Amino acid sequence: MTNRITLCLAGFGNAAQAFCRLLLQQQQYLYEVHQVKVDVTAIASRSKGALFDQVGLDLSRALEEVAHHGMFSSDNPQLASLTTLGSIQQSHAQVLVELSTLSIENGQPAIQHIEEALRQGMHVITANKGPIAWDFRRLKELADQSGKWLLHETVVMDGAPVFNLVKETLPGCSVISFKGILNSTTNFILEEMETGRAYEDAVKEAQRRGFAEADPSLDVEGWDAAAKTSALLNVLMNGNITPPEILREGIMKISMEDVKAAQKKSCKIKLICEGWLENGQPRGRVLPLLVEKNDLFSTIDATSSILSVTTDLMGEICMVERHPEIEQTAYGIYSDLLTLIRKTSK
Amino acid sequence: MTNRITLCLAGFGNAAQAFCRLLLQQQQYLYEVHQVKVDVTAIASRSKGALFDQVGLDLSRALEEVAHHGMFSSDNPQLASLTTLGSIQQSHAQVLVELSTLSIENGQPAIQHIEEALRQGMHVITANKGPIAWDFRRLKELADQSGKWLLHETVVMDGAPVFNLVKETLPGCSVISFKGILNSTTNFILEEMETGRAYEDAVKEAQRRGFAEADPSLDVEGWDAAAKTSALLNVLMNGNITPPEILREGIMKISMEDVKAAQKKSCKIKLICEGWLENGQPRGRVLPLLVEKNDLFSTIDATSSILSVTTDLMGEICMVERHPEIEQTAYGIYSDLLTLIRKTSK
Repeated sequence: MTNRITLCLAGFGNAAQAFCRLLLQQQQYLYEVHQVKVDVTAIASRSKGALFDQVGLDLSRALEEVAHHGMFSSDNPQLASLTTLGSIQQSHAQVLVELSTLSIENGQPAIQHIEEALRQGMHVITANKGPIAWDFRRLKELADQSGKWLLHETVVMDGAPVFNLVKETLPGCSVISFKGILNSTTNFILEEMETGRAYEDAVKEAQRRGFAEADPSLDVEGWDAAAKTSALLNVLMNGNITPPEILREGIMKISMEDVKAAQKKSCKIKLICEGWLENGQPRGRVLPLLVEKNDLFSTIDATSSILSVTTDLMGEICMVERHPEIEQTAYGIYSDLLTLIRKTSK
Repeated sequence: MTNRITLCLAGFGNAAQAFCRLLLQQQQYLYEVHQVKVDVTAIASRSKGALFDQVGLDLSRALEEVAHHGMFSSDNPQLASLTTLGSIQQSHAQVLVELSTLSIENGQPAIQHIEEALRQGMHVITANKGPIAWDFRRLKELADQSGKWLLHETVVMDGAPVFNLVKETLPGCSVISFKGILNSTTNFILEEMETGRAYEDAVKEAQRRGFAEADPSLDVEGWDAAAKTSALLNVLMNGNITPPEILREGIMKISMEDVKAAQKKSCKIKLICEGWLENGQPRGRVLPLLVEKNDLFSTIDATSSILSVTTDLMGEICMVERHPEIEQTAYGIYSDLLTLIRKTSK
């Protein structure tokens, strides 16, 4: 017997589009190996409009329209006049895939989307780090109470399975501390500065290559890294922390002199995220630190990232993701979907 | 309700002893969190003798005797005159933990132990890489036919969950290739040579520190690395390969000149294990290769190890285990036991 799973997508940016392309490509695998037909029945995006059809959306058409016109066409028969919240309420989809833009001040409106989805009896996959960084404990409890899954592998290090590493493959272990390089924009900027490029030029180069936003402050002030640190503390160390509680220093004050002084000491400057226990309480910080050139962390180049986790029973394990593309983010969402299929088909 | 799980240990070397210490330490956790009482009811070791008691062995006493006398005492009331095969046949334990010494020529007698255990209706956890390197496909089929589990996380990189990484956290991904530094003895010897120590002296230093055996040939000829490469090919890439089929070159011919020439090129020499597909068939090789100093692989020092896995959907993911001790091997066996508890209690 074939099962059908219906998805509602909140947001239709690059990651959402890559996820839809992957879904189209994997339809046959899902059908043959998992006996599942996956249908996206609703997409709601603030800038591109909304689509809705209980039968299942024509994803190829949706992707093409956005590629050509930046939004859904007015003659698309599946076009709907729905807000994101309206889609969640009216789509009757089984899974919300939360892909809206991160709002670092408070994790909204993604938190609201997830609450509403759980209220409607939906499972939730979020690629948006806001809810996990700001409100994980409460949302997890809500999900548990409704017997639904809240999955979020993509929130830190794209599709690299850092959360599942601890949850699925290190049974019986407690995480004592972690350390990571988790923001690729700042990593790229610092690396450019090592080649002699001034800070402002390095930021511009990052923007030109698509690593940095027009307003790069979320990255260079360390907010993105702080949100990831908060998410890791909340999930891996049972924290109940928000990004402003993370000690945070960005890279804006790093001068060419600092970079050269580091090089003289055979070091590099890296923006390091750390989490640890202080009197049993999870604490975190994000700041630029010197890393020796023969240290593992100094070899994490450009858009690569690393997370080192220290546990009570298994010592120190590191995971490195090398040179990810948007397809790896898409895979992270897809892997959560497969986890959901595995967990709910038992 | 509390479940009881009984174990039969084949072998009682360092890893087995560390596993027993960990088991003693985790009894309460197992009882409280998993409602399981774990009893070792049989231990059979060629050099230390055998113990057997349906009620459960006194592990503290067994550990103490071996620490003091190198074998079980003649006045130990649980002493038994059983061979390893006899223990497996007569213990009626539910799980065989295979910890006997690796025989690189053919993977025996561990393969025989596992076959017998499956015939007796036991699950199997093996820390011995022989069976996985030599005969994985057949043994896995035997286990599947009897509805029993064959677990082997410790076989490569101790307790670092390299097999479970792919199996549990990268659903829907196919492994296309891998590359690793997986033998710590040769890694240590090459590192010593970089400090100017001659090959023979480096081997002696490795022996003095306990990294190398009295006969270091298994390590320096690349056999241990080849067995791990074979195990990875068999499990991660659906291979049916044995260690002699791995192209293999050890480090015995590496001269001080080679090491210095590498340093001049800003490189290090590392013994690299690789696996890839050739016309759809898994192939492997082990050989000393130049690694650039700013490459991740060059920072893998002393007893640390790394495995980089390239997949179709998730790109390249690396796992690094830093400075493991025997406790991390013990954890690997324990994590297999927890996996077994989780899988069989569903």
